[in-house]
Amino acid sequence: MNGARPRIVLVGGGFGGLYTARRLGSLPVDVTLLDRRNFHLFQPLLYQVATGALSPANIAAPLRAILKKSRNTRVLLADVTGFDVERRRVFATSGEFPYDTLVVAAGVRHQYFGHDEWESEAPGLKTLEDAVEMRRRILLAFERAETETDPAERRALLTFVIVGAGPTGAELAGALGEIARHTLSREFRAIDPAEARILLVEGGPRPLAAYPPDLSAKAERSLASLGVETVLNASVTSVQGGRVTISRGGAPDTIEARTILWAAGVAASPLAAVLATATGAPTDRAGRIAVQENLTLPGHPEIFVLGDMAAFSDTKGHPLPGVAPVAMQQGRYVARVIAGRLAGRVVKEPFRYRNRGSMATIGRGRAIADLGFLRLAGYPAWLAWLFIHLMYLVQFGNRVLILVQWAWSYLTWNRSARLITGEGG
Amino acid sequence: MNGARPRIVLVGGGFGGLYTARRLGSLPVDVTLLDRRNFHLFQPLLYQVATGALSPANIAAPLRAILKKSRNTRVLLADVTGFDVERRRVFATSGEFPYDTLVVAAGVRHQYFGHDEWESEAPGLKTLEDAVEMRRRILLAFERAETETDPAERRALLTFVIVGAGPTGAELAGALGEIARHTLSREFRAIDPAEARILLVEGGPRPLAAYPPDLSAKAERSLASLGVETVLNASVTSVQGGRVTISRGGAPDTIEARTILWAAGVAASPLAAVLATATGAPTDRAGRIAVQENLTLPGHPEIFVLGDMAAFSDTKGHPLPGVAPVAMQQGRYVARVIAGRLAGRVVKEPFRYRNRGSMATIGRGRAIADLGFLRLAGYPAWLAWLFIHLMYLVQFGNRVLILVQWAWSYLTWNRSARLITGEGG
Repeated sequence: MNGARPRIVLVGGGFGGLYTARRLGSLPVDVTLLDRRNFHLFQPLLYQVATGALSPANIAAPLRAILKKSRNTRVLLADVTGFDVERRRVFATSGEFPYDTLVVAAGVRHQYFGHDEWESEAPGLKTLEDAVEMRRRILLAFERAETETDPAERRALLTFVIVGAGPTGAELAGALGEIARHTLSREFRAIDPAEARILLVEGGPRPLAAYPPDLSAKAERSLASLGVETVLNASVTSVQGGRVTISRGGAPDTIEARTILWAAGVAASPLAAVLATATGAPTDRAGRIAVQENLTLPGHPEIFVLGDMAAFSDTKGHPLPGVAPVAMQQGRYVARVIAGRLAGRVVKEPFRYRNRGSMATIGRGRAIADLGFLRLAGYPAWLAWLFIHLMYLVQFGNRVLILVQWAWSYLTWNRSARLITGEGG
Repeated sequence: MNGARPRIVLVGGGFGGLYTARRLGSLPVDVTLLDRRNFHLFQPLLYQVATGALSPANIAAPLRAILKKSRNTRVLLADVTGFDVERRRVFATSGEFPYDTLVVAAGVRHQYFGHDEWESEAPGLKTLEDAVEMRRRILLAFERAETETDPAERRALLTFVIVGAGPTGAELAGALGEIARHTLSREFRAIDPAEARILLVEGGPRPLAAYPPDLSAKAERSLASLGVETVLNASVTSVQGGRVTISRGGAPDTIEARTILWAAGVAASPLAAVLATATGAPTDRAGRIAVQENLTLPGHPEIFVLGDMAAFSDTKGHPLPGVAPVAMQQGRYVARVIAGRLAGRVVKEPFRYRNRGSMATIGRGRAIADLGFLRLAGYPAWLAWLFIHLMYLVQFGNRVLILVQWAWSYLTWNRSARLITGEGG
C-alpha cells in the first residue's frame, strides 16, 4: 500500500453496502459509495407501499444524507458496468473509480425462471417503482370492477393471483386481504370488495417454508381468515393477458385474474456474473457468486462480495438466506476485516451469521416469529415485528413518520397512501 | 322532473367538484362524481412535493374515501370525453352517464403559449406526476454536477431557471433556494450546492403581481436572501436542449440551464371547448368558458361550470383568479342552488366571491399575506399560511402526517421525501 490513504469503493447502497460504509466512516481511508439510486431502500416494507399503507419516502432515505457526517466518504450516483480486477478499477456510467479494496453488494432482481416475457404481466417487488406499479394495478382493478357491466370480466378483475408464498408473497397476500375486506369495504357502490378472490400460489407443499411447520400452518390460517386461498404444490406454467395457468400434476388449471403479482424468484445482480468472469469464481443456479469464509473472492483478498448476491454457506453447509440481517452482519464484518488490515492485524475468524430469528407479518395483529428459543404467533409476533422494523428505521429519521402513519392506518383501517399514480396520470 | 330522484353528475374531483359533492351528500339526489384520477389533490402544495419536502400521499386523498359516508354518492374513475346537452348525457371512457343536472369543474392544465414543444424541456406543475418529475430533475442536476468534470457543464447543471413569477413560480424558487443553501449544504464533496444559480424569469415588471406592490417587493427581497435572482420584464423566446433564451427588449440572452421549470401559464381543460361548442357559450383567451352570474351556461340552467375552467367576473368586472378558495365557494354556492331547486325555491342572488385574502410562502419563515384589512410578511405570514393550509387538509385526515413531516423538515432543514424515482429506476 502506498503512502496515500487506501481507497475503498463500495458498490451498492443497500443493507450490505450501507452497513459497511457506516463502520468505515471513522477510519483513515477514502470511501466511495456508488449506487444507481440516490437512496437506501428498506425493502422488507415494499409490500406496504404496494398496498397503499406507506409512501415511498417512508421506507427510503437519501444515501448522501445518511452518510453526510462521514467526511471521508463520498456518495455518487453511478451505474456500475464492469471491473478491471488487474488494474483495480470500477467502470461506471459517470466515470472510472480506482480502488485498493472493493466491496460489491449489488443485491438481486426478480427472475421469471426463463420466462422474462412474464415480467410485464406479473410485476415483482424489488424497487420503489415496482411497488408503485403494483399499487396502481391493485387499486385500478377495484376501480374498473366498479364500472364493469360484464359479470365474468368483473369476477376476473376481482381475482388476484400472487405467485410465491415466501415472506414477500404471504405478506402481500395478507395486506391485499386487508384492503379487500376492511379498507375498501364501504367505499364502492356497485361491487363489494370483500368478494375479491385472492390466490396465493406456491410450488412447494407449504407456505413460508423457511419457518417451522407449526408456524407455517398458523400463517396459512391467518391468511385464510383474511380471505386468501393458498394453492400449494402448484407451479405456474403460463402467464398472459390476465390469465394464469397452473399445474398441480394433473390437468392444468387456468385462472382468469387481471392482476398477477410475482413474488417467486430472485437472481443475483448481473455484476455477479461480471465478477465471476473476471475472477473465475463460480456462481450458483441463481447467479450468486461463491465467496470464501471471509467473504472475499478466491485469489482476490482485496475484493469482498456480500449480501443477496453472494453465495455463502453456514457451518452446516446451508446457504444463507437473502435477508436483511445477513447483509447487515456481513457489512459489519467486512468493515472489521478492513479495519484490521489497516492496523496490520489479520482478522482470522470467518464470517459467522448469528440468526436472531425471522418474522413475517400477515396482516394487522397477525404475524409469525421464529426467534429460536421462542416462537410467537398472532399479536405478540406482530408487536415484535413492528418494534424490530421501527428500530431499523430509527437511524434514518423515518421512525416518527412511520409510526404516525401506521398508527393512523391501524386505528382507521385506512391505507393513507392509496393513490393511483404513474403513466402520465 | 319525474318521480325518480334527480341525477347530478359532477365532472372533476378537485376543489370545485368536491365542495359541491360534500354539500349534496344529504340531499334526496343521486350523485355521480367522475374523475380521471382516484384522488383529490391539494394543488397549492405541489411545489412541496417537487422539492422533496412532502410525499404525494401527504397532499392527496382518495376520493371514494372522502365521500364514503355519502350513501347517495358514487365515485367512478372515468375520463370524460364529451357531452350530449340535448339528451343530457355525459360520455366517458367507462360508460355514459345521464343527468338532470351537470356540474363541470375540470380545472386547467399548463400551456406554453403556442410552444407545446417546450413541455418536455420545461415541465409544469399541475399533477402529482409533474411534481415527482420536477423533483427528479432537480435532484439529478445536483447528482450529475457532483461527478461532472467539465466546469462549464457543471455550471449549467447548477443553473436553474423557473419561468413565471406568480405564486407557483415564486414558491418553487424559494424552495429551491432552501434546498441549495441549507438542505444539501454538507452532503456533497465535489460541489457546493449553495453555488447553484436560481433564476426566476417574469414577463411583467414585478413578481407576484396579484399582490400589492409593497408585499411584492418584500417577496423579492426574501427570494434574494435565498439566492434567487429575479429577472423582470423578460419573456422567454426559446427553450431547448438545456438552454433558455429570454428577451428584455434588447438583444436576447441565452442562459445555459439544464433544469428549466414552467410556472407561466395555464389554459382551461379541453372540456371547456367541448361545452362551448355544444352550448354556444363564449370562451376567453385561456379557453375558459363564460358563465352567468349563477354559474350556469347561457340557455342551460341545468349545466353549472365552476373553478379554474370558468370565466366569471366580480362586480368590478375583474375575472376571478384561478385559486382554490374561489372554486370552494363556488362549489358551496352551486350545491345551495341545487338544494333550493329541490325545495321548489329559486336562489336569486348571484354568486359573489368573498376574497378572504391571499398568501404565498417563499421559504421557511418567509411569506406574504394580503388579508385585505391586514398585510403580513415574514414569520407571521408564514405561520398564518401554515395554519390555513393545515385547516384545509384537516378534513382529509392528512393533517397529522403533514404536521409531523413539516415539523421534522423545519427542525432539521431536511427534505425527507428527497428521492429520485420514476423512469424504471
